[in-house]
Amino acid sequence: MLALKKTNNIIRELEAELGHDAVLSSIEDIYCYTYDSNCTIKQTEHPIAIALPASIEDVQKIARFCTKHNLPMVARGAGTNHVGGCVAKKGGIIIHFSRMNKILSISPENLNMIVQPGATVGDIQSLAESQGLFYPPDPSNLKVSTIGGALALSSGGPRGLKYGTAKDYILNLKVVLADGSLIETGSNCSKNVTGFNLTQLFIGSEGVLGLIVEATLKLIPKPQANKILLAYFDSIEDASCAVNKILEAGITPSVIDLLDKFTTQTIEDFKPSGLNTYKEAMLFIELDGSKSAISEDEAYIVNLLKDAEFERITSEQQAQTFWTARRAAFGAISKLKGNVITEDVAVPRTQIPTLVKGIKQINEKYNLTASIMGHAGDGNIHPNYALNFDDMDEMSRFYKAKNELFKLALSLGGTLSGEHGIGFEKANYLNCALGSRVYDISKQIKKLFDPKNLMNPEKLFIE
Amino acid sequence: MLALKKTNNIIRELEAELGHDAVLSSIEDIYCYTYDSNCTIKQTEHPIAIALPASIEDVQKIARFCTKHNLPMVARGAGTNHVGGCVAKKGGIIIHFSRMNKILSISPENLNMIVQPGATVGDIQSLAESQGLFYPPDPSNLKVSTIGGALALSSGGPRGLKYGTAKDYILNLKVVLADGSLIETGSNCSKNVTGFNLTQLFIGSEGVLGLIVEATLKLIPKPQANKILLAYFDSIEDASCAVNKILEAGITPSVIDLLDKFTTQTIEDFKPSGLNTYKEAMLFIELDGSKSAISEDEAYIVNLLKDAEFERITSEQQAQTFWTARRAAFGAISKLKGNVITEDVAVPRTQIPTLVKGIKQINEKYNLTASIMGHAGDGNIHPNYALNFDDMDEMSRFYKAKNELFKLALSLGGTLSGEHGIGFEKANYLNCALGSRVYDISKQIKKLFDPKNLMNPEKLFIE
Repeated sequence: MLALKKTNNIIRELEAELGHDAVLSSIEDIYCYTYDSNCTIKQTEHPIAIALPASIEDVQKIARFCTKHNLPMVARGAGTNHVGGCVAKKGGIIIHFSRMNKILSISPENLNMIVQPGATVGDIQSLAESQGLFYPPDPSNLKVSTIGGALALSSGGPRGLKYGTAKDYILNLKVVLADGSLIETGSNCSKNVTGFNLTQLFIGSEGVLGLIVEATLKLIPKPQANKILLAYFDSIEDASCAVNKILEAGITPSVIDLLDKFTTQTIEDFKPSGLNTYKEAMLFIELDGSKSAISEDEAYIVNLLKDAEFERITSEQQAQTFWTARRAAFGAISKLKGNVITEDVAVPRTQIPTLVKGIKQINEKYNLTASIMGHAGDGNIHPNYALNFDDMDEMSRFYKAKNELFKLALSLGGTLSGEHGIGFEKANYLNCALGSRVYDISKQIKKLFDPKNLMNPEKLFIE
Repeated sequence: MLALKKTNNIIRELEAELGHDAVLSSIEDIYCYTYDSNCTIKQTEHPIAIALPASIEDVQKIARFCTKHNLPMVARGAGTNHVGGCVAKKGGIIIHFSRMNKILSISPENLNMIVQPGATVGDIQSLAESQGLFYPPDPSNLKVSTIGGALALSSGGPRGLKYGTAKDYILNLKVVLADGSLIETGSNCSKNVTGFNLTQLFIGSEGVLGLIVEATLKLIPKPQANKILLAYFDSIEDASCAVNKILEAGITPSVIDLLDKFTTQTIEDFKPSGLNTYKEAMLFIELDGSKSAISEDEAYIVNLLKDAEFERITSEQQAQTFWTARRAAFGAISKLKGNVITEDVAVPRTQIPTLVKGIKQINEKYNLTASIMGHAGDGNIHPNYALNFDDMDEMSRFYKAKNELFKLALSLGGTLSGEHGIGFEKANYLNCALGSRVYDISKQIKKLFDPKNLMNPEKLFIE
């Protein structure tokens, strides 16, 4: 009763700070903010309230408020995280950036764009392309996922192979720290060696150091054209070897995604898109650049991969259909058993065939239903597990498989995450991946920015 | 006398640790390590000795030794730094990486190369290119400058416009910390979001956090071809406006360097190379990519810049002559008065015309002989001052001009350094450029890695 009264007082005080309509606290509202894309609802405390800042000053007020009351603060965009990064693991206040969703400026001359954290990656891409420019990072959920989250996780996507990830398209950040102070991490210049690269310290830091409230993104000129090519193979090993053949030939497609037969079949069952489902594996290849270079590279690849069956896309509409199908994989698999957990490991790309083989063995050993897909060109594989969260036996087998998956990736010189981050789902493994010295240094860096451990606590690090 | 005895004891003990031939301590040797490219010899203490490690273990021994004796440790490669970064400002031990100069491996499949810190950028580029690969960062002194320094300064060069700088071609580092422990900052995977990006924290950190002892560089496929185009203009303002015109047209040359008439004239006086010296400014443009794309872009640029007089290069030999001439600018200017200081500021590229105009006014006001040149495409300008260090009046005018130059760059949204760093030459200005909160946080980060302040002290930060 006392706790409830205290909670109510906190909510009232926060409303007084921000305005009544900028704070959500009903049970229904709270419920909506207790999960992410992997539906990790059961493993976390509930937030006290959701704050909806409309300005940097609002965010500063929230930070000061949380610090005063020792309340955790958790930044959240569209909630598309897969590792519990945007849920309030230790309660506190969710800071939802839906009102700070504007693109503030675009400069074709300076090749940059200034955005608020709640702007969607899709809107950013569309605006850039309308001006002949290009923001390459393309998480599959780009139509809803927000740039704040994309920066906090250094999100990539299929185009990571040629273009890198969010870390490669950032010039400068404005960040609110735990005590409410506002800092700028760099400058809007494309070249800058003036002190430590704090911008990159925040990229991929998963909200544990501060709240990103504004970002200057780097843009590049839009490629003249692009073209999709689907290549089907008799085995997933053949497909993964083909990736290396293409890259060794000096060709860098914008995308080389690998989808196993289970994935293409599940997508077709979900929404028929014309994918071939009788071959064991598919490479989804996109070439971009000048039209002449695309034609040359396409001819070279078709000639190089003698063991592949190709489907060439002839119309823009067909290309869009295939892109939609490719991006639908996660959603399609979620339909199979009610729940889905997408995993995310990365290895040096020559290790892809070994990784893929190992994942298949692990999944068979634990009798799990999973697709194997991912951005094979940059060594980043996502096994998607179709699960029923109420099936305790299956979940137990899943956790054992996950454990083996991470061990396998690390043994191949790989990492725990290529683009989804650590959150709390993988926090148990971080010490092992980084080594205890780097782990300890990282915790000390966090403490330096956030001495009271209020910024997204229990993410990345075990307390 | 006591101090001398103590110094001798330290030298003997270090020799015992590393071997007699791995420690230099004669007056002649010491003298050779007391300056950098800007000849900042007078402003610094002398090191006690120069240690020449041959392995990571040697570096660890040196770090432990220095920590035990409270001795500063300063990493040094070829000594090409411009801001005093590689001199022993507070004495101590210079760690010279000339024996750790190997390229350990190259993997065309994984598009990476593993190198020791003393390998030259030129050797790295040559080996990559011999295998159809490309390491783009190209400081003008690449034939001698070492990768350890290039990473510690995030060195760029002419190709920064299209390809970025050293920070964009690094996957992983091995670093020895002040206490002698060895850490790995990331992984060799091209995608990785597993904890903080410590790799980028070390890039550009100028040796104040730790000693880079191994690096995994990211490579990309070598462009099919490249072509140089020289464009001459009636004024430096016209030339700098032309840069924006090219970029706004969606063309990204690999290089757009700007050289004023004084620079081209000085180069021609130094070594005649066929540069036109009757026009006020030159743009040195390099296009790269597929042959067809180069031809298209070249035709477009020639048509776009009606006010320019073009010189097209017809042979590889002529191209090499012009590249040599371009890279000779710094050396040529040093001949004028015996000394040269190259400055380095960066602004958002649309501010280039304003910056260039301002620099001219400052140099006129203080009656200084300086060239204006730089990587105009990425907003990075290097005024090169021909100076006589013994002329006190001239040096006094130079310091006043430098002060105004930095203020001008910052007032245009720019930074103190695009690629040369802060060292101790610009340390006085860092607080102003970063703001006191970021400056304080940065000092605390340094303290976390280096609690006794032994790693390149008095660089970046004022004590």
